[in-house]
Amino acid sequence: MKVVIALGGNALLRRDQPPTAENQRDNIRRAAAQLARVARQHDLVLTHGNGPQVGLLALQAAAYKAVEAYPLDVLGAQTDGMIGYLLEQELANLLPTTRTVTTLITRVEVSLQDPAFQHPTKPIGPVYSRAESERVAADKGWVMAPDGAAFRRVVASPRPVRVLGLQAIRWLMEHGALVIAAGGGGIPVARIGEGSDQRMQGVAAVIDKDLCACLLARELNADVLVIATDVAAVFLDWGGPTPRAIGHVTPQALAEHHFATGSMGPKVEAARAFALATGRRAAIGSLEHIEDLLAGSAGTQVSCGQHK
Amino acid sequence: MKVVIALGGNALLRRDQPPTAENQRDNIRRAAAQLARVARQHDLVLTHGNGPQVGLLALQAAAYKAVEAYPLDVLGAQTDGMIGYLLEQELANLLPTTRTVTTLITRVEVSLQDPAFQHPTKPIGPVYSRAESERVAADKGWVMAPDGAAFRRVVASPRPVRVLGLQAIRWLMEHGALVIAAGGGGIPVARIGEGSDQRMQGVAAVIDKDLCACLLARELNADVLVIATDVAAVFLDWGGPTPRAIGHVTPQALAEHHFATGSMGPKVEAARAFALATGRRAAIGSLEHIEDLLAGSAGTQVSCGQHK
Repeated sequence: MKVVIALGGNALLRRDQPPTAENQRDNIRRAAAQLARVARQHDLVLTHGNGPQVGLLALQAAAYKAVEAYPLDVLGAQTDGMIGYLLEQELANLLPTTRTVTTLITRVEVSLQDPAFQHPTKPIGPVYSRAESERVAADKGWVMAPDGAAFRRVVASPRPVRVLGLQAIRWLMEHGALVIAAGGGGIPVARIGEGSDQRMQGVAAVIDKDLCACLLARELNADVLVIATDVAAVFLDWGGPTPRAIGHVTPQALAEHHFATGSMGPKVEAARAFALATGRRAAIGSLEHIEDLLAGSAGTQVSCGQHK
Repeated sequence: MKVVIALGGNALLRRDQPPTAENQRDNIRRAAAQLARVARQHDLVLTHGNGPQVGLLALQAAAYKAVEAYPLDVLGAQTDGMIGYLLEQELANLLPTTRTVTTLITRVEVSLQDPAFQHPTKPIGPVYSRAESERVAADKGWVMAPDGAAFRRVVASPRPVRVLGLQAIRWLMEHGALVIAAGGGGIPVARIGEGSDQRMQGVAAVIDKDLCACLLARELNADVLVIATDVAAVFLDWGGPTPRAIGHVTPQALAEHHFATGSMGPKVEAARAFALATGRRAAIGSLEHIEDLLAGSAGTQVSCGQHK
């Protein structure tokens, strides 16, 4: 089978852990054991989030006053290099030396007409007091939003339109490589200018990595899309008195419920969109149970067909 | 022709410039105009240094006290993602949309028996007072060395032994892709453990990007190796009363002179080694004149054969 697996940034660097290199390496090493077993059986493209990682880079950049912090597209590219390297190293250590494991830096096109640019929602980087927040908003043209009693920069989360490095991923897969790509939802770039002046330029935005994984899985004609996160399944009444895990479900049935924006919402949307567009199966569940998710025996299994 | 071009990290972020994203993008945009013309005519693999870039990341990480700075192999991977992305974007903007431009994160094997590990020489990150320097040396096990009146961490610069992602680069080249790879000399990894416990692990070191470019060019069977830096050629009596640019030269003749370690030295060694091992041509000169360097009409041209 051809499998696309999306790893949550929070699964690689958990919310309850200090974001050290050591913690990240340990989590990746643990995930790699399962992923390597999957890779021995299947053609695998691996993608991943980068929320906590890009957050740390933004904090570090803000702490060093001598040079202005690099823009968000560049920070995203940095995290893709880092996370890709860590994943590649651990996977290659577990696979036969004849298996090529390779990491691509992936640009993903977004549209500047995407309504998300009118309503930035994704918080990023340090927290500011109200006065500081007003100053950086004026200085840098950032959009700021309340975050508890403080303020943070918010950026848009536009939809992925096109994976620019797709052809390279296809070629490498044809040769049997395990490809790590489109980290953090891909580096967001948009078409600017007219006619012969038209060019791609990085934008300050964060593409949802699950929606990007869905696009990638569709374009690669994947048999299954697995979205691995830090919870065991999609839950109804999450945070309420009687949370209930969803097992097998159709995309149509899933559409009747609402899930948290920026958290389970995009995962459910990605899984539904993949199942509807392809007639194939998408799974959402815990990073600890990737093999069972892939086998269809754990987490939330989204498919149009008869349930086994 | 099959061409490997190595861009100096200092050529992408000049010593006389603040290391901002904007300056880096401008320099890369200027270099890309020439590189794109080369890529229209030839099969091109592009590699690059990362000295100033990894230096900035180390300073930013040191400024943010809440999380310990990530190790050097990880910072290197971050710079490879960043510089690769910036190069890829500008090159893709200048090339036909049908041409695939792709960036690979590349691990390069070094040997822990390399004598360089006994004598770390490469300064990295912030400067410390003597007292601070002694404290971080004790805390982190770093080797510190004087840098003017202050102290800095120094790391080893071992020789590249093997480019681990070589097969992926070859496949992508066969499909006509322009490949950006082995940034910063590659991410240094070494084999540790015995028997079935054997694995690759990142090491705190900096592989010279010119020696890595030489290895890459040899392994890819390149026709020419071009080393682009911020000076016009290799000079005899550099910094002396009568500096003289070297034009055409044999590797044998070049061996009779000494060049500065960590600066022109590795470039000369890489060019000599490539010409000797392959009987083909290597060129060293200015980033501003890449096309002339490639054509053989500028810079220092190193080859065994008859000079035109």
